[in-house]
Amino acid sequence: MTTSESKKAVVLTSGGLDSAVTAALAMAEGHECHCLIFDYGQRHRIEIERAQQIATALNAASSHVLDINLTKISQSALTTSMPVPKGHSIDDIGQGIPSTYVPARNTIFLSIALGWAESLGASSIFFGANVLDYAGYPDCRPEFVTAFNTMAQLGTKQGVEGSPITVHAPLLKLTKAEIIVKGIALGVPFGLTHSCYDPSPHGTPCGACDSCLLRQKGFQDAGISDPALEDH
Amino acid sequence: MTTSESKKAVVLTSGGLDSAVTAALAMAEGHECHCLIFDYGQRHRIEIERAQQIATALNAASSHVLDINLTKISQSALTTSMPVPKGHSIDDIGQGIPSTYVPARNTIFLSIALGWAESLGASSIFFGANVLDYAGYPDCRPEFVTAFNTMAQLGTKQGVEGSPITVHAPLLKLTKAEIIVKGIALGVPFGLTHSCYDPSPHGTPCGACDSCLLRQKGFQDAGISDPALEDH
Repeated sequence: MTTSESKKAVVLTSGGLDSAVTAALAMAEGHECHCLIFDYGQRHRIEIERAQQIATALNAASSHVLDINLTKISQSALTTSMPVPKGHSIDDIGQGIPSTYVPARNTIFLSIALGWAESLGASSIFFGANVLDYAGYPDCRPEFVTAFNTMAQLGTKQGVEGSPITVHAPLLKLTKAEIIVKGIALGVPFGLTHSCYDPSPHGTPCGACDSCLLRQKGFQDAGISDPALEDH
Repeated sequence: MTTSESKKAVVLTSGGLDSAVTAALAMAEGHECHCLIFDYGQRHRIEIERAQQIATALNAASSHVLDINLTKISQSALTTSMPVPKGHSIDDIGQGIPSTYVPARNTIFLSIALGWAESLGASSIFFGANVLDYAGYPDCRPEFVTAFNTMAQLGTKQGVEGSPITVHAPLLKLTKAEIIVKGIALGVPFGLTHSCYDPSPHGTPCGACDSCLLRQKGFQDAGISDPALEDH
């Protein structure tokens, strides 16, 4: 692998705040970033368009929207007509696994990123998971990322040949406020990011799902007003 | 989880010989089998149709063809116009990783199977990998399967709650001949199975790719004539 290839990275890009900051961080570290975006049948489809806009705004080397319709094989409030839970107390978020959990979603996304990374000759995958104020998802935890990396090393040609592809989750232990402060310093276009699980058809956030509540608290704790509420 | 749910299984079904025997084995063990078939842009597309026919012939509880177009993000002789290697000596197969390796393919397929299994409340995934006469693929090895299971336990709700989903690869250490003998005993419709990586537009096997050569040797060693060569 050449030096240039070793700085290639695939970035899971959801259109949300965490993955936008993750992409900006990867670029600030000198990676040539290839943004992988999924159209998986999510009800908050606006995030797909936003993810593409974010990749462009951050000058990603490329972006790709992969269609993978999980609606017929996945039971989740994000992929079916099950209601999205709303109105939780902020302290209750992260207690237990909510109905917005999409079975094995991050495993699926990281696996596809792994395949693309290997085809590109990239050595890194960047993943915006974060555990401190996460909404109870098992596949956003450090032990999951570590286990994924072990599996990825054994299951790929690059891994077997001594150049494993590694998943980096630089936001894993940061609070939402810390992520926002970091993003502001990196010039992340937060006005383009979308967090809500259950937006209006025009993309207006509901303001009451767990993802909206975590976002609101993050901006509040960071002492910054949310540009997405002004811009859109 | 009820007793009935615990016997549900997702079976990766490729249309090939190994996965057909694996599905038949899972059924013989009393599993309610849900066959997962991938349309991933493979050049040997006939295997998709054969996989559906096999699922029906074996009386699977359900089957689902998932579209996931890997051609734009995957470098492999199976997904691009790269030539499929042919005419190897049988003893050379399995030495090194061939150009028919699709980056992270089995990781991707198993991850999607994991999501479906969790949505079904299944406890098992059946996977027809086999290592003894495999064509050098890193993601067909026992250590990969073990690492996948560890990752799956940590990354799913069922795993975290104490009912992990486990990948079973019952053919892992069998020779092709042993797999064929087992399949005959189980009534596997080998005439429907397709192994060739580079068939004619009508589905006729090339007879010279690694997959054809391994199949020919398997039937020869088992002392059985290949019904697929008679039926199709």
